[in-house]
Amino acid sequence: MTTKSKNVYMNITNKLIWIFLFIGVVLLMSFLRDTKAKSKKVIFFGDSITQMGVQPNGYISIMKEMLAQQGITDYDLVGAGIGGNKVYDLYLRMPDNVIAQSPDIVVIWIGVNDVWHKSTYGTGTDPDKFEKFYRAIIKQLQADKIKVMLITPAVIGEKNDYSNQQDGDLNKYAQIIRNIAKDTDLPLCDLHALFHLYEVNNNTANVDKGVLTLDGVHLNDAGNKFVAEEIWKVLKEIQ
Amino acid sequence: MTTKSKNVYMNITNKLIWIFLFIGVVLLMSFLRDTKAKSKKVIFFGDSITQMGVQPNGYISIMKEMLAQQGITDYDLVGAGIGGNKVYDLYLRMPDNVIAQSPDIVVIWIGVNDVWHKSTYGTGTDPDKFEKFYRAIIKQLQADKIKVMLITPAVIGEKNDYSNQQDGDLNKYAQIIRNIAKDTDLPLCDLHALFHLYEVNNNTANVDKGVLTLDGVHLNDAGNKFVAEEIWKVLKEIQ
Amino acid sequence: MTTKSKNVYMNITNKLIWIFLFIGVVLLMSFLRDTKAKSKKVIFFGDSITQMGVQPNGYISIMKEMLAQQGITDYDLVGAGIGGNKVYDLYLRMPDNVIAQSPDIVVIWIGVNDVWHKSTYGTGTDPDKFEKFYRAIIKQLQADKIKVMLITPAVIGEKNDYSNQQDGDLNKYAQIIRNIAKDTDLPLCDLHALFHLYEVNNNTANVDKGVLTLDGVHLNDAGNKFVAEEIWKVLKEIQ
Amino acid sequence: MTTKSKNVYMNITNKLIWIFLFIGVVLLMSFLRDTKAKSKKVIFFGDSITQMGVQPNGYISIMKEMLAQQGITDYDLVGAGIGGNKVYDLYLRMPDNVIAQSPDIVVIWIGVNDVWHKSTYGTGTDPDKFEKFYRAIIKQLQADKIKVMLITPAVIGEKNDYSNQQDGDLNKYAQIIRNIAKDTDLPLCDLHALFHLYEVNNNTANVDKGVLTLDGVHLNDAGNKFVAEEIWKVLKEIQ
Repeated sequence: MTTKSKNVYMNITNKLIWIFLFIGVVLLMSFLRDTKAKSKKVIFFGDSITQMGVQPNGYISIMKEMLAQQGITDYDLVGAGIGGNKVYDLYLRMPDNVIAQSPDIVVIWIGVNDVWHKSTYGTGTDPDKFEKFYRAIIKQLQADKIKVMLITPAVIGEKNDYSNQQDGDLNKYAQIIRNIAKDTDLPLCDLHALFHLYEVNNNTANVDKGVLTLDGVHLNDAGNKFVAEEIWKVLKEIQ
Repeated sequence: MTTKSKNVYMNITNKLIWIFLFIGVVLLMSFLRDTKAKSKKVIFFGDSITQMGVQPNGYISIMKEMLAQQGITDYDLVGAGIGGNKVYDLYLRMPDNVIAQSPDIVVIWIGVNDVWHKSTYGTGTDPDKFEKFYRAIIKQLQADKIKVMLITPAVIGEKNDYSNQQDGDLNKYAQIIRNIAKDTDLPLCDLHALFHLYEVNNNTANVDKGVLTLDGVHLNDAGNKFVAEEIWKVLKEIQ
Repeated sequence: MTTKSKNVYMNITNKLIWIFLFIGVVLLMSFLRDTKAKSKKVIFFGDSITQMGVQPNGYISIMKEMLAQQGITDYDLVGAGIGGNKVYDLYLRMPDNVIAQSPDIVVIWIGVNDVWHKSTYGTGTDPDKFEKFYRAIIKQLQADKIKVMLITPAVIGEKNDYSNQQDGDLNKYAQIIRNIAKDTDLPLCDLHALFHLYEVNNNTANVDKGVLTLDGVHLNDAGNKFVAEEIWKVLKEIQ
Repeated sequence: MTTKSKNVYMNITNKLIWIFLFIGVVLLMSFLRDTKAKSKKVIFFGDSITQMGVQPNGYISIMKEMLAQQGITDYDLVGAGIGGNKVYDLYLRMPDNVIAQSPDIVVIWIGVNDVWHKSTYGTGTDPDKFEKFYRAIIKQLQADKIKVMLITPAVIGEKNDYSNQQDGDLNKYAQIIRNIAKDTDLPLCDLHALFHLYEVNNNTANVDKGVLTLDGVHLNDAGNKFVAEEIWKVLKEIQ
């Protein structure tokens, strides 16, 4: 072995040591990650309804209590709702507010403002662009190995005979989400359909608020409980 | 009899002749009017759908043919539709376009633009003002001894699952008209309900136009025929 | 004179007495009316700005004080403003709220909601229909021998560099009123132009409210004073 | 030298050859890139106005001809406009349509639809979100070492007296862009101000289209020439 070849050999040895060290660290991190993965981090990504969901009687708080009562401890439920958000607002803040938080599952619940703001500010979202941004969010989350669950927008007004001003439009956007769920084979909690059924059965006076909501949009206690239960039915099936 | 009293007497005689002549003419006119009244003048008062109703295949033209085929000759069907009209446009032009034409019956068919123009121009009609003008039209027509028949707005989009953008709002305005018909005990042709039923049964592909309309709003041949038949069912009962 | 002719004569005499009595009353009323006419009844016909105009610091109240201080006693200033009113609301309630009150002069101040409600509710007024109803109001008032004065809508937002959202549209509707004033040769108080000039000179910080308004639309104390003075300048010239 | 150490040596030699080859290629590419970098790639990023800008008489085509006539050959002008785009559409397609194309300079011209679609579809963009997405686009481009130039939206209607419906709102959004340009110290072509000046001086009949545009928004020949010249004045100063 010449000096030159010896040096080369030494260098290779050094490099191999580094490589083994690196592999060790990666394995260790991977192991730690596995341990941590046993607690699933779920981010609820949405608008003011979700922003209110982390309040004492909010649907996320109620879901936490439900899980605690059932002795389920391996879920970390986190709210990421901001009032007035539409689908493109979610897309813009997803890197910081969601992906940087390394969730295992993201539950997307958006759409009310995309429809509602058409008539209140003239700043709703076109249906084709709603779909485009919605799919872009899913694509990015899946690229980051995050599981995704979808929810249709519940109600704007609680009348049960399709006479709330936005009923047609909201149903149209709910249908867009149903179609996306089908195409992408993603779990869906169809609150739009579930709320309608509940209203038909329980809102016999056909009032426009006060059954599951405070104001036709934001959940009251009954609404928060109903939503917590319905979301959990779908969420618990996600492995 | 003095000359003076004679002159007075002569004057009175002259006046009486004129008075009798006047009464005679009035009676004659009244008699002619009775004869004419046997032909009921019906004015269809509405928007572009009614404006197109007098065209060769329009619903008013079809109704005329239907009546002719059935040997019914005592109806004079007249179109008074203007494109883009909302309820307050009807109110404004009612004196000239309707009352001055001395109809026996006025069929009011309005509401599509009151809802539609909210999203296309920002110039729809608030529901409370829609009702206020609608009732004002009825009140004025009834004050002029004209019979009134009401029609609910048919459709903006033909999808049968309440997913056309304006479905909720249009249904809300149809409900306003139903309530007015109830309150005022006026005959109603509920095309909004009839179209929905037809779409559920016949629009199996759930398309948004082409079943009863050309474009989701204006009637195609099938639509004109359907409307002619449904309106006639109610109209013929008005004595 | 026979009994018959005597009776006829008596009847005629009776009738003449009644006729003279009637003429007398009419003359008396006409005389009283002349006396009363010395006090000109002015109705301010408008929206919430005018509704607030009769409040203690409102522009109508201030104008009354101004006149009292100047010893002018022959004006009866009456407010007829209703919040949310657009031009067609004025037309609908004109018979009861204005004409039945027998005013000498009507000051029409409308237009803010016709523009504003486009973006807040989707229920503004199309420019062509704004003009049509505006002219119909004038025509009816003039048919009833009532003098008419016009006012352009002041502001929606007080920024002075044409950067308030509705600046373009409001200016367009102000221009419609200016054109009507020209066509009909009616006195005009162009508050839209006067407010702009005032803002350019006094709103140096270019704020959007707080200079002449409380909220960008409804007058503050300075605004009520400014409006009272500007309207009076035009109103006093109407004979 | 053992066979083993020889093999190692050979492998290392082979690897070194590959490494040198790789370095050579990288250097060559880097050299070519330097050469190519002398030709500045400019992407015009916008809506239908820019989409039409690459047509034979479009402003980008005209700018190319202008540069050719002046013997300027080191610019590569590329259109990336899509009809109906608002600021958030640019953000969504920026990775593929702009960054992946490795431009040296991106000229952002957006805003007309963000304002216009408020009244035509109820789907405009709120001013705060307009600013948020606008700044996010700039931030991302700058993170990728791309130079950025800003343009204010020109006109929606050519009337020169601030009586086009959207004048106030468009001016407001132009002001947002002016403020961003100031904050970020980026070059700005203020077409909104330049168009207004041009209209005041040249649109003496105060028509709403036909001076610099075909329809109040999209450029006619005079408009394309005007825009090409004004953009170039700012663009040529960017080093």
